[in-house]
Amino acid sequence: MPSRITVPEKALRTLVSDIFAAAGTSREHADTVADVLVWANLRGVDSHGVSRIPRYLELFGNGQANARPQITVDQRRSAVAIVDADAAPGPVALTRAVDEAVSMARSAGVAWVSVRGTVHTGAIGYYTERAAQYGMAALGIVAGVPNMAYPGTGAAAVATSPLSVAVPAGRHPTVLLDMATAVIALGRIAQYKASGQPLPDGAALAADGTPTTDPALAKIPMPAAGAKGAGMSLVFELLASGLTANPIVSGYHSGDPAGRRHRQNAVLMAIDIAAFTPVEDFRSLVDATVDAVKSLPPTDPAAPLLVPGERGARTHDERSSNGIPLPAGLVSKLREQAEALGVAVPEGL
Amino acid sequence: MPSRITVPEKALRTLVSDIFAAAGTSREHADTVADVLVWANLRGVDSHGVSRIPRYLELFGNGQANARPQITVDQRRSAVAIVDADAAPGPVALTRAVDEAVSMARSAGVAWVSVRGTVHTGAIGYYTERAAQYGMAALGIVAGVPNMAYPGTGAAAVATSPLSVAVPAGRHPTVLLDMATAVIALGRIAQYKASGQPLPDGAALAADGTPTTDPALAKIPMPAAGAKGAGMSLVFELLASGLTANPIVSGYHSGDPAGRRHRQNAVLMAIDIAAFTPVEDFRSLVDATVDAVKSLPPTDPAAPLLVPGERGARTHDERSSNGIPLPAGLVSKLREQAEALGVAVPEGL
Repeated sequence: MPSRITVPEKALRTLVSDIFAAAGTSREHADTVADVLVWANLRGVDSHGVSRIPRYLELFGNGQANARPQITVDQRRSAVAIVDADAAPGPVALTRAVDEAVSMARSAGVAWVSVRGTVHTGAIGYYTERAAQYGMAALGIVAGVPNMAYPGTGAAAVATSPLSVAVPAGRHPTVLLDMATAVIALGRIAQYKASGQPLPDGAALAADGTPTTDPALAKIPMPAAGAKGAGMSLVFELLASGLTANPIVSGYHSGDPAGRRHRQNAVLMAIDIAAFTPVEDFRSLVDATVDAVKSLPPTDPAAPLLVPGERGARTHDERSSNGIPLPAGLVSKLREQAEALGVAVPEGL
Repeated sequence: MPSRITVPEKALRTLVSDIFAAAGTSREHADTVADVLVWANLRGVDSHGVSRIPRYLELFGNGQANARPQITVDQRRSAVAIVDADAAPGPVALTRAVDEAVSMARSAGVAWVSVRGTVHTGAIGYYTERAAQYGMAALGIVAGVPNMAYPGTGAAAVATSPLSVAVPAGRHPTVLLDMATAVIALGRIAQYKASGQPLPDGAALAADGTPTTDPALAKIPMPAAGAKGAGMSLVFELLASGLTANPIVSGYHSGDPAGRRHRQNAVLMAIDIAAFTPVEDFRSLVDATVDAVKSLPPTDPAAPLLVPGERGARTHDERSSNGIPLPAGLVSKLREQAEALGVAVPEGL
């Protein structure tokens, strides 16, 4: 375990916002990015938190991401809109998209908002949980550049594209599923490497397509549940990239180097519970369902059953109070990037 | 391998329709059930085909299914409707629902149709593929009575609830994902039992919650990819059952025997491609994506890569021409049920 520095949420949020603003984004967009990245760290999804900042800055630098995007929203029908992200950072484009989806679902009942041409979405659960805060259920998918195996080949064929579903509860935290279609996330492989542990069998392939448990060699995660995870990833590509006429998988495999550049598409759907049933009744039903699952006899009495999002909600409460533990090396890197951009490092960092 | 009888599609379709009509359904509903069940056999999904007939008849007999349902469609918003199935057989309720979804999506862009209180939906892929025949993409989920394990308990906690996504292509068959959230379907366990083969490790638990590879003891399939499959099943229950105010999981675990009766809820969503992009362009993009995946180097040169639905489409073509192979025991059982209902057995059966 590398040494860790515990950082107050507020200081981290300020630092992230100041870095993005100094890198050229509007203050509003900088605050949005800070909210999305720090949310991931608060929930314990550290692979999708502030550790991604250097990559966003690199994408601004090489022109693959746009710090001053002209985002357009084209509402096509009562329940469909397309957000053209103009290479905005994912947190900016997807926050806009989910807010549009919530607004449209208030009248249409559900709304499907496609996001065309963004970069790194961050943790997709942020956006579905945001809809849940408005009393809606939500579903999100992302399509990205192939980095995952596929049954029958040793090549990276499709992406580790995630699915998220958020369902608001009453007494309980929002039920929040946020899963990659891979057995193991690339970020988790890096964590195994840092800790010197071997990977589980069947989790990843080396670059040459042979199975490996050595995290230093592992480059291509296996799809979750074989053909199921691979199939989900492929249909997410067709829904997220196909409907926005912005294909990623076919371009990636075309042999044209431009087809390999980083880009993502996404779909966010909001579902207005009030169109179906009184929201308070629904919340009670969700609570009763969560209670029913959690009251089942545990295999290990010391390990009570969890529902999706429960651990993240608990970590969120704990880290909101006590601060966010970050690897010392990451804190140094963020300080350096702040200094390079002329940003003052807030107290506590 | 038990001995098999190859049956012409048309004869099987006639027999199924005649059995359901004799059991009390309208001819229209009987034809719908025949279409859904025979489709599954044509595609090679024999676990969801005519082998289910005895179970539907049993449900008519014990009053849990309704041969003369008063189905109502309540359109709540431009993109939301609820089909109250009145305990109709799943094929009748879900065919109605997907046709409503397609019709609503023509104007709203997408449409979400919930199905409340049906029985055995059959193969959910039938309904999403039906939408694809209208040039739409579609998504379907089902919620049912708990029969699947959940991380941390040996009890049946949630259902093996399936997800289906259909995406129409051009030259290629419709890309059709149709997957249970379990490692293995209960029907597959029965096939292992019939063939005397042990189950793969980690596929199922015995009734007492202990892992087993003996198909005779295996009662509770494990969730696909652990917490991922279990989490998907739980959120499908909240979306399909929660939004129709017809909970299954909480009732099942409540201790009230009525909570254990067979029932299912579902969601079918149609997505009108024309709301996003010209349909012919979309079909070409899907073809190019399928081609890109299928052109990757195979691990085994004799085993080319497959995309979701490809094998089923090929089996459909083959069985449409050459007939549907059914176990001899099943054919005998269908003949007996036909005779008991006074139905003439068509030639070829």
